[in-house]
Amino acid sequence: MAEAPTIEDIRKAHERIAGVVHPTPVLTCAAIDRITNCRVFMKAENLQGVGAFKFRGASNAVRSLSEGLASKGVCTHSSGNHAQALARAALERGVPAWIVMPTSAPRVKRMAVEGYGATVVDCEPTLQAREDTAAQVMEDTGATFIHPYDDARIVAGAATAAVELLEAVPDLDVIMAPVGGGGLMSGTCLAAAALAPAVRCIGVEPDGADDAARSLEAGEWIAQESPDTICDGLLTSLGKLNWPILRDHLETILTVSDDSVIEAMRLLMTRAKTVVEPSGATPLAALLARSGTIEPGTRVGLILSGGNVDPDSLPW
Amino acid sequence: MAEAPTIEDIRKAHERIAGVVHPTPVLTCAAIDRITNCRVFMKAENLQGVGAFKFRGASNAVRSLSEGLASKGVCTHSSGNHAQALARAALERGVPAWIVMPTSAPRVKRMAVEGYGATVVDCEPTLQAREDTAAQVMEDTGATFIHPYDDARIVAGAATAAVELLEAVPDLDVIMAPVGGGGLMSGTCLAAAALAPAVRCIGVEPDGADDAARSLEAGEWIAQESPDTICDGLLTSLGKLNWPILRDHLETILTVSDDSVIEAMRLLMTRAKTVVEPSGATPLAALLARSGTIEPGTRVGLILSGGNVDPDSLPW
Repeated sequence: MAEAPTIEDIRKAHERIAGVVHPTPVLTCAAIDRITNCRVFMKAENLQGVGAFKFRGASNAVRSLSEGLASKGVCTHSSGNHAQALARAALERGVPAWIVMPTSAPRVKRMAVEGYGATVVDCEPTLQAREDTAAQVMEDTGATFIHPYDDARIVAGAATAAVELLEAVPDLDVIMAPVGGGGLMSGTCLAAAALAPAVRCIGVEPDGADDAARSLEAGEWIAQESPDTICDGLLTSLGKLNWPILRDHLETILTVSDDSVIEAMRLLMTRAKTVVEPSGATPLAALLARSGTIEPGTRVGLILSGGNVDPDSLPW
Repeated sequence: MAEAPTIEDIRKAHERIAGVVHPTPVLTCAAIDRITNCRVFMKAENLQGVGAFKFRGASNAVRSLSEGLASKGVCTHSSGNHAQALARAALERGVPAWIVMPTSAPRVKRMAVEGYGATVVDCEPTLQAREDTAAQVMEDTGATFIHPYDDARIVAGAATAAVELLEAVPDLDVIMAPVGGGGLMSGTCLAAAALAPAVRCIGVEPDGADDAARSLEAGEWIAQESPDTICDGLLTSLGKLNWPILRDHLETILTVSDDSVIEAMRLLMTRAKTVVEPSGATPLAALLARSGTIEPGTRVGLILSGGNVDPDSLPW
């Protein structure tokens, strides 16, 4: 599927994954409202299955497959949240999954994927090796490749988080979400455009992986090269499917320092009592940095995209 | 009010505090279900205002006062969650609050209370000094004393957490909550007895502060002396109002080690992505220890009573 999903695709995705994904809560926190001078509504995708919004898109993709295709299984290359998301989505449908992962991936990530019953396939830690290994798996097994973000089924699934947020809080002024490959943000834009067209959509990137901000400024897709940030979910280049969606719908992309991300993570933990990974804390980091220039009382939706962080290695 | 609250008192409390307290979400976590072999529903009072269920009772107590009494303010002695809860409840009603706190209390706790606009009144770190100082404040100001747990308004407010949990999940088999002064647990018992009488109510205490377990065994109220546990919210003796409620309604009280509490906190942080203080993790600790003896698939409600823990001083 090379075309952007429609609102109908998004609605169908929402029906397809109902009962599998959590309808995550929208958290509010008086202290964060006070500090930002806004009314902040946080869609807690850190409480989603596998601890990240990725489970929405993976579930939609796996459940979109015909019986025949599904029975041959699914495959991807990822050492991040998409790996666990696809493994668990396959488990929920009762079909096999092969996850190509570099030998350099942390043991805990391999174990998490294996814990969902998927097979980890080793490869060298280069993009070429990943792609070659995945191609070999597909040839050997007939498994369907599910891209982490550059896939309309993934985008439609990711969009369902914004659908739920807008149902819970219909009168938002702004929605902010992190931008890595752009699946979450483009899904969010499409949902908002259809359901609440007055809502302003703002993407957020780390300073050290700002390809989407640079693309938006240049008016053309620019690759991410040598990213450098603690936001390990946002290292990748923008998807080719997602780029024009973001170009056409985003008001802007804000960039944040790693230090401000750490401050946002701490605030979420100490005041909102919720564990958010660096990538997921970028929208709050951006809001904290800009709160002086935002009209007081603005109703801001933030998508806390994930919560997979090791409590033994907190970045402070 | 020396009598136990009725279900009508609890319903009125719920109406009185609506719009002030959060209707906190009920969290579920596939990993915790798998590990415990149960269906676990966690009432996230760590996401409550001031980070603890205490805000329910304090709000109910402050909002129960007549205009005349309320205008003279409220007073308590506490260095724990009740101090912040009463300060914020007074702020919400726009009346003054005096919080008597030992000079030994951590600076961060004093600042939190002052942040809600309350006046901190110093005293020596003895129970006698606390009570004398509070009595003096009341004499000087006409403020109404609000006890942290041995008060029917506090119990009725605390009970509203269980009311919401039972509304969200009507077919629970078991509810477990921590027992310190017993306000939360007795409110939970009263709500369950009225709304879901088949639900089994189980209290949980740390090994190092097990006065309620010993009271239950002895059939008479036994004081807590020299408690020793990381569960800083559960150090106190059982309230005299709460003891007969627990005696008459509890199936049992389970006790847990500090190590098991730390394990439960870690599990909540890593898998449920939620920050829970030691006291609030005791029910999950008890469930983890007993999961082998519980019928698989049992539907267990846990009240995560609070989330006020310093991310710089996590106990691992």
